[in-house]
Amino acid sequence: MIFKNDLLLRTIAGEKVERPPVWLMRQAGRILPQYRALRSQLRDFKELVETPDKAAEVTIQPIDELDVDAAIIFSDILVIPDAMGLPYEMVEKVGPSFPNTINTAEDVRKLKTGQSVADDLGYVYEAIEETVKRLDGRVPLIGFCGAPWTLLAYMVEGKGSKTFSKAKGMLYADPKLAHELLQKITDALIAYLKLQIKSGVRVVQVFDSWAGLLPPVHYQSFSMPYLKQICNAIDEVPITVFAKGAWFALKDISQLDCKTVGLDWTTDPLFAREQMTSPKILQGNLDPCQLYGQPEDIRQKTEEMIRTFGHGHIVNLGHGVYPDTPLENVRTFVNTVKNFTY
Amino acid sequence: MIFKNDLLLRTIAGEKVERPPVWLMRQAGRILPQYRALRSQLRDFKELVETPDKAAEVTIQPIDELDVDAAIIFSDILVIPDAMGLPYEMVEKVGPSFPNTINTAEDVRKLKTGQSVADDLGYVYEAIEETVKRLDGRVPLIGFCGAPWTLLAYMVEGKGSKTFSKAKGMLYADPKLAHELLQKITDALIAYLKLQIKSGVRVVQVFDSWAGLLPPVHYQSFSMPYLKQICNAIDEVPITVFAKGAWFALKDISQLDCKTVGLDWTTDPLFAREQMTSPKILQGNLDPCQLYGQPEDIRQKTEEMIRTFGHGHIVNLGHGVYPDTPLENVRTFVNTVKNFTY
Repeated sequence: MIFKNDLLLRTIAGEKVERPPVWLMRQAGRILPQYRALRSQLRDFKELVETPDKAAEVTIQPIDELDVDAAIIFSDILVIPDAMGLPYEMVEKVGPSFPNTINTAEDVRKLKTGQSVADDLGYVYEAIEETVKRLDGRVPLIGFCGAPWTLLAYMVEGKGSKTFSKAKGMLYADPKLAHELLQKITDALIAYLKLQIKSGVRVVQVFDSWAGLLPPVHYQSFSMPYLKQICNAIDEVPITVFAKGAWFALKDISQLDCKTVGLDWTTDPLFAREQMTSPKILQGNLDPCQLYGQPEDIRQKTEEMIRTFGHGHIVNLGHGVYPDTPLENVRTFVNTVKNFTY
Repeated sequence: MIFKNDLLLRTIAGEKVERPPVWLMRQAGRILPQYRALRSQLRDFKELVETPDKAAEVTIQPIDELDVDAAIIFSDILVIPDAMGLPYEMVEKVGPSFPNTINTAEDVRKLKTGQSVADDLGYVYEAIEETVKRLDGRVPLIGFCGAPWTLLAYMVEGKGSKTFSKAKGMLYADPKLAHELLQKITDALIAYLKLQIKSGVRVVQVFDSWAGLLPPVHYQSFSMPYLKQICNAIDEVPITVFAKGAWFALKDISQLDCKTVGLDWTTDPLFAREQMTSPKILQGNLDPCQLYGQPEDIRQKTEEMIRTFGHGHIVNLGHGVYPDTPLENVRTFVNTVKNFTY
């Protein structure tokens, strides 16, 4: 497929582009009035994720409204535990919650894995196909999944947590069981990403949202080997690895077979460049709270960031855009990038 | 006063000691059965904080039970907002909550500051005096306060938060007002620490618990100048600065007039040593979740950590000990340090 706007793909391919591409994590979400309108007609978040026609519609909303350079499929990282046999609920204003959690070897043994998990996620692939059809080549579509450690964190903890001490506890108390679980998740993820790609995504992003909770040596043991398996297994499209808070692992992440490394807002662009032991595109990393500021300040800070990163950069926030961010400020951010020239 | 155990003070003074001292953040708390017993007789956490006799009792419990090398006064960083005119409640299993929050210039104007705030915290100084009396020179007592940015975070957000986006929002939307608030907090803190010292604490620790939420440039603007004021104003006793998550600011923190720098568990000891531009004692930083592991593993990881830090080290966890940590594992940790020789 030829894209009308292929800036993202050209940037990832290492071409010297006229300006960096821009998209936002959680761009398809509560910042958009059309999202809130559609969402209010449905039972819950999960119904939206599992209804391909609606998921496609909200995926495209930010392209129409903000004219960003990429779409990202509307879904959730927790569809994988769900398909493995551990259903989640999304509790309004609280976050995910698992009625059952993983505690024992028997719990891990009972989980499905690999292709059979991926095959159960037909609603995601249908949403991708429908989105690609409706986008009609305007911009490429990004697929995604959660990283194995981050999914383990939810599956063992059962809900969001400041410390994830129960999940981390498993790594210390029963590392063998943790590795078994991580491998089952990884096998499911690889099959899942391959089906996303087959359905039409042109880039995939792996979100290791809880990377920053692990000590560096634990990140080495319990996250990196599985990220490596995923990066090695996916060669059809470029991969982005976004390990939030894992500043200490950037050097290792740069050795993964991925094209792009996502950065949170605590990571100075120059520090990140120094850590890269092989050439990577960097993605990020404005503080989402910057978008609560004055328009002129947003413009200035965004331009400053682009100049600091230099070429080989995809503009994004350092985290998902917060739901109460004024839409006009998001627009200022996006337009600043679109008006920029290197 | 001559201390029977002055290992902490000798270490901070730069003496070459036989083994590192050890204490734990939140050592006076739910890990101890005697704490839970005493706490269950009281209305709430705040009553315990505000009753000098009881606060002294729980401060000493870990010295009796675990034989750690220092006591830290049982209190809370939120006594300062409380005394400034912004009362907090401690909601069981949820955390702090402020019925009123700071939103406007008028809200900031109305807050008390400086000596008048410090003078209102008599219950803290009484608890310190009572503790010092009862300790009778066994170990030195540590005083503490929250850092200005961390206290602003609670006062504006009104409660704990994953993102503290409302509090961070103020830094972007009204930086001038944020600076006014930070200065009022700082003036209160300096007077408060001086009265803690007058009452008998021999070391003070400043907790910047939410340091890691700020981008490096914001940390420079909204936290460092106030930490600097505090460090410059307190010359009676050595200061420890613990800025959780602020790996990016360690170099700047090492330029503060403090003796000790606290580290969370994501910070490799060698990385931390490299960042120190002037000689500092380092404090930390075992992952609190390590204490969910097997005793042999706790011993091994603790010894490994001590060897990696080398001399000029105070052993602690990288965060407060989690309430559900098995007491025997805490004891294993402490005893490993006490049996260590360099």
